[in-house]
Amino acid sequence: MSQSLTDQEREKRLRKKAVVDQRIAQATEERGVLILLKGNGKGKSSSAFGTLARALGHEQRCAVIQFIKGRKETGEFLFFKDHPLLDFHVMGHGFTWETQDKSLEQQAADQAWQVAEQLLGDDRYQLLIFDEMSYMFKYGYLDATVVAERIGNRPRHQSVIVTGRTMHRELLDIADTISIIQDERHAFRAGVKAQPGIEW
Amino acid sequence: MSQSLTDQEREKRLRKKAVVDQRIAQATEERGVLILLKGNGKGKSSSAFGTLARALGHEQRCAVIQFIKGRKETGEFLFFKDHPLLDFHVMGHGFTWETQDKSLEQQAADQAWQVAEQLLGDDRYQLLIFDEMSYMFKYGYLDATVVAERIGNRPRHQSVIVTGRTMHRELLDIADTISIIQDERHAFRAGVKAQPGIEW
Repeated sequence: MSQSLTDQEREKRLRKKAVVDQRIAQATEERGVLILLKGNGKGKSSSAFGTLARALGHEQRCAVIQFIKGRKETGEFLFFKDHPLLDFHVMGHGFTWETQDKSLEQQAADQAWQVAEQLLGDDRYQLLIFDEMSYMFKYGYLDATVVAERIGNRPRHQSVIVTGRTMHRELLDIADTISIIQDERHAFRAGVKAQPGIEW
Repeated sequence: MSQSLTDQEREKRLRKKAVVDQRIAQATEERGVLILLKGNGKGKSSSAFGTLARALGHEQRCAVIQFIKGRKETGEFLFFKDHPLLDFHVMGHGFTWETQDKSLEQQAADQAWQVAEQLLGDDRYQLLIFDEMSYMFKYGYLDATVVAERIGNRPRHQSVIVTGRTMHRELLDIADTISIIQDERHAFRAGVKAQPGIEW
């Protein structure tokens, strides 16, 4: 037994389809994009890693640089590290609240940026992920103007995803896509312990 | 040459650390969580798939149900489909704006929910992803009250991620973590064509 749409429902769908079709027809430029994932909610790095899976699924060459070294072996690192089309760099000094020595942090940031610069000049890479890069600007270890200029001059078909709570104006200005991930509720605040597979 | 923190910087970091430590000490409950990823921004499904990579990296058994069948072979499907710890179900009738027959869509939704219900009763699965499930409520194909009740009664250590633009009250009420992904800017609106590795 088939259940047809009402005339009203059909009309509404067709109107919506016309809008979608028109937008698709207008979006014709083929090039890589700069995506910024910012905000205080859960989902920024995981979104970047989901996009990574997507790109690898299409056999695109990719690279990740994690600018903050957190836990020793994250699920994402264990999962992706051996993929033949991926370079996975966990950089960073392991920023902690107790660090007494800024020069070690600066050194780690410099090394990470050196790798990033190389990748931004290598057109074999279709997707680069700079995870938690925005902390580098916040703490003054990297210059957002320099980074934005280098990203702006990358190969035309290369896409870049930058994650971090806050995002500097220099990057916002040149971004193609910006999503703000808002923390509406978090299990942690209700007393649920952070756990492997969800938080790392 | 070592560059020490100023007293002020050190004090600020230690204060912050004390807050973080206290929060960690208070979060002691060990159980699975329900995570909702909603909003109109780019990053909901990709965040779910990034978390999937994380969970698989820790060798947790996982399952995905895609409630809307979009493109034929997405990057995420190609990438994840053969993983031994994962069931990847692409359900759905392939919802289109031109569909004339609601019963086919209803049938697809029923089948997808049948699979979901089985998974929600199987404690071997640590993470379930119900991708684009919220459309099922919007179009009346699934009852949010029934779904919320079933999710609420799942095995204690099972986590569930539900994605979709809008989210029904019944699910919001029982969620542990909610992130709202806001569309601040999108390349598509500037005329950049949707592309493999980024959009699918």
